[in-house]
Amino acid sequence: MFEQLGLIGCGLMGGSFALALKRAGLVKRVVGYSKSPSTTERARQMGVIDVEAPSALLAVSGADIVLLAVPVSATEASFKAIRHLVGPNTLIMDVGSTKRDVVDAARRVLRDHLGCFVPAHPITGKEVSGVEHADADLYFGKQVILTPIERTFTVQLEKAVNVWTALGCNVLKMSPQSHDAAYAAVSHLPHLIAFALINSISGQAQGKDYLSLAGPGFRDFTRIAASDPKMWRDILIANKEELLEQSKIFQNTLQDLEKLIATADGDTLEDRIEKASQTRANWRISSPKSLK
Amino acid sequence: MFEQLGLIGCGLMGGSFALALKRAGLVKRVVGYSKSPSTTERARQMGVIDVEAPSALLAVSGADIVLLAVPVSATEASFKAIRHLVGPNTLIMDVGSTKRDVVDAARRVLRDHLGCFVPAHPITGKEVSGVEHADADLYFGKQVILTPIERTFTVQLEKAVNVWTALGCNVLKMSPQSHDAAYAAVSHLPHLIAFALINSISGQAQGKDYLSLAGPGFRDFTRIAASDPKMWRDILIANKEELLEQSKIFQNTLQDLEKLIATADGDTLEDRIEKASQTRANWRISSPKSLK
Repeated sequence: MFEQLGLIGCGLMGGSFALALKRAGLVKRVVGYSKSPSTTERARQMGVIDVEAPSALLAVSGADIVLLAVPVSATEASFKAIRHLVGPNTLIMDVGSTKRDVVDAARRVLRDHLGCFVPAHPITGKEVSGVEHADADLYFGKQVILTPIERTFTVQLEKAVNVWTALGCNVLKMSPQSHDAAYAAVSHLPHLIAFALINSISGQAQGKDYLSLAGPGFRDFTRIAASDPKMWRDILIANKEELLEQSKIFQNTLQDLEKLIATADGDTLEDRIEKASQTRANWRISSPKSLK
Repeated sequence: MFEQLGLIGCGLMGGSFALALKRAGLVKRVVGYSKSPSTTERARQMGVIDVEAPSALLAVSGADIVLLAVPVSATEASFKAIRHLVGPNTLIMDVGSTKRDVVDAARRVLRDHLGCFVPAHPITGKEVSGVEHADADLYFGKQVILTPIERTFTVQLEKAVNVWTALGCNVLKMSPQSHDAAYAAVSHLPHLIAFALINSISGQAQGKDYLSLAGPGFRDFTRIAASDPKMWRDILIANKEELLEQSKIFQNTLQDLEKLIATADGDTLEDRIEKASQTRANWRISSPKSLK
């Protein structure tokens, strides 16, 4: 049970965390701060936070748990804003989709308090953003990746595992490097491809007509293209080495398939599609066994 | 009201058409043929067809409406198998995802009966195949593209429009060329990309680990990768000129985005993502207004 959640960023991810923590009876008070005062005000009116803080520092004042739910590019500035009121027992977490850059920022800024920070990436989201879409169920049954480093305090790490587990999450631990490589492949690259495909079609003279003819396959394939531009700009740039490497491997695979199509090599093409089809048909989202 | 549907291919698409036609009271009798006798037998046991035909020709005997629901590469052989029992009043349709190759096959084989053929592409499907997944609702509320040519008989075209409309479809007409260009962009390329992405990840040393970490975005993005390998091998090769052209435009767009990422040009990258995000957020599947 925590006394006070200091919430920096009262959007979809932060707001949902506050609602879930409250519903689980894990926190007495939520003090929230957002860059835009109107967001903070709306969060309070909606009951997502209890108290509006005029600054990130004041949201952290008195907090024993702090969640940074800001675009990854704003992480370093947020650490700087709050570091003077971080105590040795405070648990600080983020929800960023990249981890190496966040860990680097924490190393530069938090210094003696670096051990209080447990980098976290919950594998969830919506293609809409903003506190008005905050949802106490957003994290339930989902995976959360924690990427502690050698200097992370064991007490804070244990608290982090416990709080996400209590929200119904399946907690995995790995290094920031492993995390960023894996999510470049299974998340950042699919987003990049979806953005590129939409612009590739809409940029053609008959693009509007083409889009009007698309069906359910296109709908699901491109759902993630509607994601938040600022957030994804930051993620793609923050993880650019791993992402560009994955994109290269993908384009090589694509170009191999193109050669089979150009030469009408049906047998080999069918083998490749069969491999993809089997892999995908056997794939399932991992989730806590006790929950599903 | 038709006397007899001659169904060539009793799989997902053909079986669903038979069920929908029966439910709408539009046909008295369905005579079905599949290459595999066990499929034909199962279709009869399930009530999808009324009579099993031992050949495509015998399924067409006495039929006033014929549906070819076979892989597009089998279209020409199917036309050859049935042409001797096609009468001047028979309506023949297909459900293939490509239209130029199907029209070319019809021109080569059907000769005097070419006018009986109304090429059709219903924009629907499932990532599972086989008569056991046949569904009377598969076509309801969906688009159907008809691609008549100059020699298509007006009577058959009108019958085709009426039957799909009666099944709850939104009927559009366009040229085979326009159809193939549009679906290369919004369907065939997304499938090709999804196959390539899955193989690109699973081919890496840590591919299995990466896949186990993927979430809901990946699930939706790659759903179409589980599609039927034979069917998609045929489609990708049948429409290769348009598909490879669309893939080139896509890769150029992707590589432009990669450059913005590599140089960390956040402002321009955000503009591009914003454009994609807006386009996708404003996009809706077209459907008959009276039905939705």
